[in-house]
Amino acid sequence: MLRSWARLSRALPGFVAPRSGVQAAVTPTGVLRHSSHKIWLTPSENSIDRAVPNSSWSQEMLHHFNRYIEMTKDGSWQKLPSYRSFYEHFPEGHERCELQKRRNRLFLRSIDEEGMGFEYVMFLNATEKRMVCLSQLGPYLEGPSGFAHGGSLATLLDSTLGGCAICVNRRVLTANLSINYKNPVALGSVVLAESRLDKIEGRKIFVSGEIRSADRQILHAEATALFIQLESSILPQEKTVFE
Amino acid sequence: MLRSWARLSRALPGFVAPRSGVQAAVTPTGVLRHSSHKIWLTPSENSIDRAVPNSSWSQEMLHHFNRYIEMTKDGSWQKLPSYRSFYEHFPEGHERCELQKRRNRLFLRSIDEEGMGFEYVMFLNATEKRMVCLSQLGPYLEGPSGFAHGGSLATLLDSTLGGCAICVNRRVLTANLSINYKNPVALGSVVLAESRLDKIEGRKIFVSGEIRSADRQILHAEATALFIQLESSILPQEKTVFE
Repeated sequence: MLRSWARLSRALPGFVAPRSGVQAAVTPTGVLRHSSHKIWLTPSENSIDRAVPNSSWSQEMLHHFNRYIEMTKDGSWQKLPSYRSFYEHFPEGHERCELQKRRNRLFLRSIDEEGMGFEYVMFLNATEKRMVCLSQLGPYLEGPSGFAHGGSLATLLDSTLGGCAICVNRRVLTANLSINYKNPVALGSVVLAESRLDKIEGRKIFVSGEIRSADRQILHAEATALFIQLESSILPQEKTVFE
Repeated sequence: MLRSWARLSRALPGFVAPRSGVQAAVTPTGVLRHSSHKIWLTPSENSIDRAVPNSSWSQEMLHHFNRYIEMTKDGSWQKLPSYRSFYEHFPEGHERCELQKRRNRLFLRSIDEEGMGFEYVMFLNATEKRMVCLSQLGPYLEGPSGFAHGGSLATLLDSTLGGCAICVNRRVLTANLSINYKNPVALGSVVLAESRLDKIEGRKIFVSGEIRSADRQILHAEATALFIQLESSILPQEKTVFE
C-alpha cells in the first residue's frame, strides 16, 4: 500500500510532510529521488544499509546477490540500499518528527535477529521497467508448519510491485493487489520477487509480478496490481524514472 | 495461504505429518479439531496463550476485547487461543519434528516486544459463518511513514479469511486473494478484520472480508478470496464446522 505524501498528510493531522522543494518518492525500502531520468536514494548519516550480506545468508543467497551485483557494473541495474526505518531513509523530511515515529520500523525490517525474518535486497532496472527483490525467508515468517505465511509473500509482492509503480509517478495510490498462490515456500528458501510495468492508461498504472524460486524453476505466487496516479503529481518537475 | 496437510507433506520430503487418526485443520492461529458440529483447539502444555490483554493494549483495544468476550458467554462466539509457534498449537503432530521447526514462529507472533508488532485476538461465530480478528497494529509494522504496511494488512486478511474457509473444510488451498486498499491505517490503531463465508460451489469456497476501524466508521481495506477444497478431504468423518 503506497500512499502519496499529500494523501498521507491529509490522513493524519499530525503527519510531518517533507520540506518544500524536496522531490521524494516513498518506497517500502527507501526514498527514490528523481532528477532528469536518473534515480538515487537519500544517503542517511549513521544509518546502516541492511541490504548487504550477513552471516545468516545461505550460499544460494550469496550467489544470486553476487550475480545481481555483477549486473550493476554496466549500469543496467541499481542496488537499492535498505534501512530499518522510514526515518532513516528520509531524515530531512522528519526534522520536526516526534520521537515515536523515529522509533518505528519498516515491516520487512522489524525482526532484530539476522536471518530470522526477511533478508532481502532490491535491484532496479529502469530501462526494462523492472524491479526484483532477492529474499531469504527466515523461520519467523511461518504460516503452515515449515512454510512461509501467505502474508509474508503478500508483503514481498506489495513492496516489489509498489516500487515499480513509484518509478512511474511518485504520487500513486494502490487500488488493488491480487495474488494467485501456486506453490508453498519452505522456510529458509531463497526466492526472487519480480515486478514489471505493464501499461499506463491515463492515471492508471498496471504492474504485475511473481515470486519464483531463485533458480526460477518454481512459481510460488503471481500478482497483479493497479495503482492510481494522483492528479496533483502531474507536474513538469516530476519526471518519470522510466522513459 | 493455507495448505492441506496432504499438499504440504508432498511439498517437502521431510515434512512431518500428524499422527494417523488425528482430525486437524490448520489455521494461522491454531489447530481446529472437528467433532460432529463443534470445534475446539488443541491445548498445549507449557504454551502461553498470547491472545490476552497485556500492558501494551490501549483502552480501545481492551474495550473491544471485553465486548467480544461478553459475546462468548451465550456460546455464539468463541475466542481462539493463539500461541507463538505452529508447534505449540499442535505438539502431537510434531513428535518427530526436528528441533529447527520447533523454533519457528508464526509470522504474526514473530516480534518479541509486546505491542510493537501485531497484538491480536480471533473470535469465531460458527452459526453466522463469520470470523473476526481484533488487532492493534504496532510501530514495527510501518510502510509509509506512520502508517501500516500494505503487507501487514494483507497478512491480517489472509489469516482471517483463511480461518473462515477452514471451518468449511480442513483441506483447502488458497487460489486467490484480492485486496482493495481504501484508507491507510495509522500505526497504533485498533482495527477489526472480518471474514464471512459467501458461497460454496462444488470444491470452490468463496470468502470475503474487510478491515475496518474498531468502531467500524472507516473502511481500510476489503478483500475476496477463493479457496479450493481438495478431493481427498471429502470424507464422512470430515464434517464442516458451519452447518
